[in-house]
Amino acid sequence: MADGAGRKRRGGGRAGNAARRGGVVIEQMPWHPPINIDRPVEPLNEEGVAAVHEGAMQILEDIGIAILNPEALELFREAGCSIDGDVVRCSREFIMEMVGKAPDTFTLTPRNPDRQITVGGNTLLFGNVSSPPNYWDMEIGRKVPGTREMCRNLLKLTQYFNCIHFAGGYPVEPVDLHASVRHLDVLYDKLTLTDKVMHAYSLGKERVEDVMEMVRIAGGLTHEEFDATPRMYTNINSTSPLKHDYPMLDGWMRLARRGQGLVVTPFTLAGAMAPVTMAGAVTQSLAEGLIAIALAQYINPGCPCVIGTFTSNVDMKSGAPAFGTPEYMRATQMTGQLARFYGLPMRSSGVCAANVPDGQAMWETSNSLWAAVQSGTNMVYHAAGWLEGGLIASPEKFIMDCEVLQQIQRYMDPMICATGPDEIALDAIRAVGNTGHFFGIQHTQDRYETAFYQPFLSDWKNYEGWEVAGGIWTPERAHHLFKEIIASFEEPPMDVAIREELAAFVAKRKEEGGAPTDF
Amino acid sequence: MADGAGRKRRGGGRAGNAARRGGVVIEQMPWHPPINIDRPVEPLNEEGVAAVHEGAMQILEDIGIAILNPEALELFREAGCSIDGDVVRCSREFIMEMVGKAPDTFTLTPRNPDRQITVGGNTLLFGNVSSPPNYWDMEIGRKVPGTREMCRNLLKLTQYFNCIHFAGGYPVEPVDLHASVRHLDVLYDKLTLTDKVMHAYSLGKERVEDVMEMVRIAGGLTHEEFDATPRMYTNINSTSPLKHDYPMLDGWMRLARRGQGLVVTPFTLAGAMAPVTMAGAVTQSLAEGLIAIALAQYINPGCPCVIGTFTSNVDMKSGAPAFGTPEYMRATQMTGQLARFYGLPMRSSGVCAANVPDGQAMWETSNSLWAAVQSGTNMVYHAAGWLEGGLIASPEKFIMDCEVLQQIQRYMDPMICATGPDEIALDAIRAVGNTGHFFGIQHTQDRYETAFYQPFLSDWKNYEGWEVAGGIWTPERAHHLFKEIIASFEEPPMDVAIREELAAFVAKRKEEGGAPTDF
Repeated sequence: MADGAGRKRRGGGRAGNAARRGGVVIEQMPWHPPINIDRPVEPLNEEGVAAVHEGAMQILEDIGIAILNPEALELFREAGCSIDGDVVRCSREFIMEMVGKAPDTFTLTPRNPDRQITVGGNTLLFGNVSSPPNYWDMEIGRKVPGTREMCRNLLKLTQYFNCIHFAGGYPVEPVDLHASVRHLDVLYDKLTLTDKVMHAYSLGKERVEDVMEMVRIAGGLTHEEFDATPRMYTNINSTSPLKHDYPMLDGWMRLARRGQGLVVTPFTLAGAMAPVTMAGAVTQSLAEGLIAIALAQYINPGCPCVIGTFTSNVDMKSGAPAFGTPEYMRATQMTGQLARFYGLPMRSSGVCAANVPDGQAMWETSNSLWAAVQSGTNMVYHAAGWLEGGLIASPEKFIMDCEVLQQIQRYMDPMICATGPDEIALDAIRAVGNTGHFFGIQHTQDRYETAFYQPFLSDWKNYEGWEVAGGIWTPERAHHLFKEIIASFEEPPMDVAIREELAAFVAKRKEEGGAPTDF
Repeated sequence: MADGAGRKRRGGGRAGNAARRGGVVIEQMPWHPPINIDRPVEPLNEEGVAAVHEGAMQILEDIGIAILNPEALELFREAGCSIDGDVVRCSREFIMEMVGKAPDTFTLTPRNPDRQITVGGNTLLFGNVSSPPNYWDMEIGRKVPGTREMCRNLLKLTQYFNCIHFAGGYPVEPVDLHASVRHLDVLYDKLTLTDKVMHAYSLGKERVEDVMEMVRIAGGLTHEEFDATPRMYTNINSTSPLKHDYPMLDGWMRLARRGQGLVVTPFTLAGAMAPVTMAGAVTQSLAEGLIAIALAQYINPGCPCVIGTFTSNVDMKSGAPAFGTPEYMRATQMTGQLARFYGLPMRSSGVCAANVPDGQAMWETSNSLWAAVQSGTNMVYHAAGWLEGGLIASPEKFIMDCEVLQQIQRYMDPMICATGPDEIALDAIRAVGNTGHFFGIQHTQDRYETAFYQPFLSDWKNYEGWEVAGGIWTPERAHHLFKEIIASFEEPPMDVAIREELAAFVAKRKEEGGAPTDF
């Protein structure tokens, strides 16, 4: 494998050609967020849905959720909820009334309006891996802390692949940037290297406000224009069990007031931060999510909210988290049923526990991506590039995952299953009869260029052809593509004045010291 | 990777321990063929199903199927079908009347009655890879022709894994055995190394009759007992487009007369042996399958039949077959809808185009296995061990696939989604509140041993733990397990007298020259 890579790099060939062609390294599918045409998989019957809902309501009414944010506590008090120390208990009437105000569908519009995405309904959106502190690639061959360069490279992949529809959190944490200014540099990179929907970490008011301001500047928007429609989003995690922390809620409320996208994703590992039973873990996750959504709707009725799920389980022998398991799949499907019950868009993830981009990585990731499809998920976080339970970002894994994402996009093309006379093709079958083949006939010639999914990474050659081409395993092939894509990457266009304004904002905020780092 | 393997082999440790423990290399799930509790994915609406059915009927009525077997032709003539040379045209009334006689569910009972399987309904059965001419493992590191030893080793895996429910064709073609006696030696190996349901290739009357006789002997059965209920099965492929060859139909009719299992699986690659449109390829495949089933029902009404699908597509650039693609998934789902329309059990496969057991192999295989689930497939051929579009069998791939199969088995456990009070677990949630965790509480303690899927191959350690353990990628871990399983394998019990009778039969038939090899 290493030899194959070496030969390829020394030879230069494809990478050089690609660069000369101006960025066309692979033929990929066009930008076209898939519409999920499959009926969701529903493991719960009506009574099951009712039991989970009832459980979530009882948690909210009787057990309560700790809200470690005085401003949020005060809002719950004002709304008539019961406050006991920092524990909030809400009636189901309040929760359901508030949740009922959330739209079932909304748009997110980035600086390039052609990259607008619709969240909700049957739309299936994929985002890059977010937030791993570490990085792994085939050339380095080991786990290393993330850097700005690695982060920039993964952002280039995020922009490059049409099957990635939004830019989630930092695709790897650039720990070579000081935490006080990291958000400024990375957002500058994100906004210049990509033109897709942006995300802000809810990790302190300065960070949130800076990101909103940078997104506004990059879009060439007035404050009024920014506030008029969702331009970006945040994702918050509860501190399970049953707790929301200060900074997450602070960011949540800031974006709620400005009508920006709000995703709440409890991280409920069954057996650790949630009950060992999957329905219990799902129930708890929903309660934690619903109270945040109720808060947002109380602040700004109709603001765009998404209920997320990150319910998996731990290995009870070691305590290690497990991902892409049967339990993960069922929990995601159950959450999907309840998301539809509440009329909320849903987020889930592409996940695996594997440490390297091998077979295990792909069966775990496939399980989680198909669970996203089966659950009716709208936003798939970490859809490309995640390893080691989210502790490692890998460009090879990113590219391998994109091959799977493209296949899901193609899978959702209703034309595959068209059954008109041209598709049943009796005339062609009659013409070929029982002695010929279909390669050369007109029916085939008219369709062969678009009839089937064309992979960019899968190698469909036979063994001998594959061997002659170097006998290169999938992650090594992905590594070659990674190098070629980075070498030929072209930034999306940005007005010079806007770029300068963005740079000036970053410089000013750095001078001011950026954000406090005492979190 | 190679270093890791070397250390492990030199150290001996686990393999030696396993052998001493008497065959317990891994903790695997018990024998329990999954019941598919998911609603099938149905890409066709009612009109779509009707259009495909109508197309299949028009093929059978108007275009006709070549039947290259005089005996079968005579039977169709006797049944009132139109015969034009070797092309048979059947009325839809005849086809539907005959197909209506086939049972929707039947059992197959091997020599060990505890391994009886039910084909049909919601049962999901997995079989080993069948018929690759070549073999690949990590130690050899290249593609080589199959041998009896390789075949025996793969049969040991077939027996070892509880998630493999039937022994399909030869898991690799042992080309070191002369073709005239190959079936005798391999069936002897199959019947002594495994106690699961057997298969006979329909490749000449001597082979078919020999296998039926050996299965009868191994089961300690009289001829009457053998005929009384299905003990084994054959699988035939049409020669698409629109043709059934002599030996396949010969074997088909022999098993039909004795009431044994019958699976017909057209191999319809869209764009090559079938229309480039997936619905057309499915329609043609169904027509080819239905005429064989009609023949079997005419011969022996009520005999057990299964309709198979092997509809995929070719890469239109190279002509190479593609597997586990979006088109493959949809074709399998469409076929499932029609199988239910006809009231027939269904067969599909676990497939990939990849040449080595890497990421591509697992996303393609995962796609095909989940398509089997989504289509309501009953028998999944090639569920473990297949590479290179079926041209290579690999023990590492076999073991990797079994990890996925076990996960599907676990996924179908309705307990994952139980929503009783114990599972919603409000008491546990209340007890832990917002400050603790669920590791130590009684609700967890009572359930932790069985709460979650336990993998035998997936490595859930964090990167550092994985690195300390050798940093071994999935196929290499599978290779270690392969060696350990083979080293500690114990044959299933067989009565000494039966074994002697079987050996004597093989010796006698070899003396007689076995089977002709002029096919």
